[in-house]
Amino acid sequence: MHHASDILLTIFIIFIAAQVGAEIAQRLRLPAVVGEIAAGCMVGPSLLGWLTPGQILPGTPLDVLAEIGVVLLLFSVGLETRLEDLKKVGKSAVLVGVLGVLLPFAAGALWAHGEGFAWVKSLFVAAAFVATSAGITARVLQELGVLQRTESRVILGAAVIDDILAMLLLGVVSSLQGGGSLDMHSLLLTLGGAIGFVAIIGWGGAQVMRRRSNWLDAPASPHSALTLVLALCLGLAWLSTRFGLAAIIGAFLAGMIASETRQRDELEHKTLPLLSFLTPFFFVITGAKINLAELASTHALLALLVVTVIAILSKLLGGFLGALSLGRRSATIVGFGMVPRGEVGVVIASLGLTAGVFSEQIYAIIVAMSLLTAMITPPVLAWLLRERGDTTMAAPDPDI
Amino acid sequence: MHHASDILLTIFIIFIAAQVGAEIAQRLRLPAVVGEIAAGCMVGPSLLGWLTPGQILPGTPLDVLAEIGVVLLLFSVGLETRLEDLKKVGKSAVLVGVLGVLLPFAAGALWAHGEGFAWVKSLFVAAAFVATSAGITARVLQELGVLQRTESRVILGAAVIDDILAMLLLGVVSSLQGGGSLDMHSLLLTLGGAIGFVAIIGWGGAQVMRRRSNWLDAPASPHSALTLVLALCLGLAWLSTRFGLAAIIGAFLAGMIASETRQRDELEHKTLPLLSFLTPFFFVITGAKINLAELASTHALLALLVVTVIAILSKLLGGFLGALSLGRRSATIVGFGMVPRGEVGVVIASLGLTAGVFSEQIYAIIVAMSLLTAMITPPVLAWLLRERGDTTMAAPDPDI
Repeated sequence: MHHASDILLTIFIIFIAAQVGAEIAQRLRLPAVVGEIAAGCMVGPSLLGWLTPGQILPGTPLDVLAEIGVVLLLFSVGLETRLEDLKKVGKSAVLVGVLGVLLPFAAGALWAHGEGFAWVKSLFVAAAFVATSAGITARVLQELGVLQRTESRVILGAAVIDDILAMLLLGVVSSLQGGGSLDMHSLLLTLGGAIGFVAIIGWGGAQVMRRRSNWLDAPASPHSALTLVLALCLGLAWLSTRFGLAAIIGAFLAGMIASETRQRDELEHKTLPLLSFLTPFFFVITGAKINLAELASTHALLALLVVTVIAILSKLLGGFLGALSLGRRSATIVGFGMVPRGEVGVVIASLGLTAGVFSEQIYAIIVAMSLLTAMITPPVLAWLLRERGDTTMAAPDPDI
Repeated sequence: MHHASDILLTIFIIFIAAQVGAEIAQRLRLPAVVGEIAAGCMVGPSLLGWLTPGQILPGTPLDVLAEIGVVLLLFSVGLETRLEDLKKVGKSAVLVGVLGVLLPFAAGALWAHGEGFAWVKSLFVAAAFVATSAGITARVLQELGVLQRTESRVILGAAVIDDILAMLLLGVVSSLQGGGSLDMHSLLLTLGGAIGFVAIIGWGGAQVMRRRSNWLDAPASPHSALTLVLALCLGLAWLSTRFGLAAIIGAFLAGMIASETRQRDELEHKTLPLLSFLTPFFFVITGAKINLAELASTHALLALLVVTVIAILSKLLGGFLGALSLGRRSATIVGFGMVPRGEVGVVIASLGLTAGVFSEQIYAIIVAMSLLTAMITPPVLAWLLRERGDTTMAAPDPDI
């Protein structure tokens, strides 16, 4: 029974840190998620060291809890999103997705080449500038209760496009880096697979669910609408990784499909306790991954500043231009909504480190950039959205 | 992102296996938990091999999910238990706890000595016969909706006593095995610590909560009654391991304390989605740990049969005698409720294997015995409780 002791203590620490961080952030009128990430940085290896580096590596129990947390978060965001509403913003979402990938990629490649990388390696570095991590933005939008706004829908739709394109880019630069030639045939196959997956699941699933809500009524069985859609969520989260997409894309689609059923409100309500238990793990562990020690030099800090500014401005500009048809204010909101790179940039940077493309320091800088964008976005986004005056900074789920 | 793929598939498989197993069990009029354990055995290393042995070792992500699942289960059982009600059955619970430890310990020691073990080693083997695992019985009682019955309260109270005594016994036999002499002073200290922990947390916490329910109303904060009591649950689960007790004892106490607040019903309601998501992991993984290959000989099967019969009869008799004041029928229910050894026997057997006290085969037999008792109890208990005619075999939580 003693083997359980350490991990229980760690889980307790993370849970408490998240609550304390959220509380402080709220008092400072910042989104709770900022407090959770900051609390993670505080208890993580860089500062207090209550979490060791080994405890937050990929595949460890805490990492898996974090993954489940963000999967459930995007599932619940999907539950608040109707396919019809996404369709209405389809054009803007595609534009935002495409420009939001191309501009950071170009800017990242130019920076890396300027730093002395060969072009092929520069493209690899640039890939780490690309992928938006929808978790952070989704949480802020949910916290502010503005998931129904046009800007939110554009951001969510664009996040799906963004993920497909980022996955393709990574495929291209990996194969170039590996010395292989570009295999257009397999690339097109990958692209087709990913688009097909999203289209068939998203559109087809919604059709089925709209007509067959009664499948979720199974009064004589031990299951319930909740367990059935949770199974759907886990299944699609896994399946989307098989198509090269992030697990959260599948979870989002599962939620979106489930939102077509008439059990929708009940499902939303029952997902809340799961969110309040599990999502803090994602944000605290995101914060704990910030390695301050690697950045403790003027040169590194300067490089981090440059990289972060490039990453923010290029993404902001891409999103802004893509969403310009919504007006300049909304386009700014969309642009900032796409800024967080979160853990996706970290994963690409890890690949680069393993492949010997990056130095430890470039790795630390890219990781820190990813996490900085995740830290900076929530307050800016909350400020932009609050300034519109049609939302209040309430407790995330006063109902839980 | 790909590193997440395997674990997501495994989580999906476990979740689906649990639902299918529960569905089949219900159609056979068996408790759902039997189906979940059987499904775990099916997808585990022994049969289909969809879970590998390495995936279910202590400290792995799946094991941690299982641990969280059973912690939340006992927390929710605690939520349905009032301290006042436990006090009323105090004497019976203590008797059941004490006799339910002594008889299996004596029977186990006699069997082991008969098998040729020296007395000191026999006592170690016997320790693996002792500890009741409250998770299985608690789930059956909850499923049948009979947690309010006297027998259930006796079982839950006795499970706490049982855990304290089993922990002491393990301390004694470990120190004897290690060649040390019995240090009565440190044993008394351990005993005092454990009893003090349970008494102070259980009694003191209930007093505080009864008067200070308003602490859980924090409308201006991002938290909620649920997150506050979940933090309490995780904290006490960890703390109880520090006193040598199982984590589920602390979780049960946390639930019992929280049941004194006026937010009790709300908390019960909001814990249900957490249970339906996380507890299946505990039962599926319990089933997956059954290693059928080690038992594929007539000798091993025979030994397993003998050990299991001894384990069941000795515990049944101890519980029966302890609860005899409730009448013979209720005493039988209590006796069977104490039978499951679950993972606690497995942990002791692992210690024995590591310490070189057991052979691989004795280890497999003791593990299989622990799991067999966990498999056998639910249908018997359900049958005994249904025969009384005052309960129906309903879906566990039709409300979820």
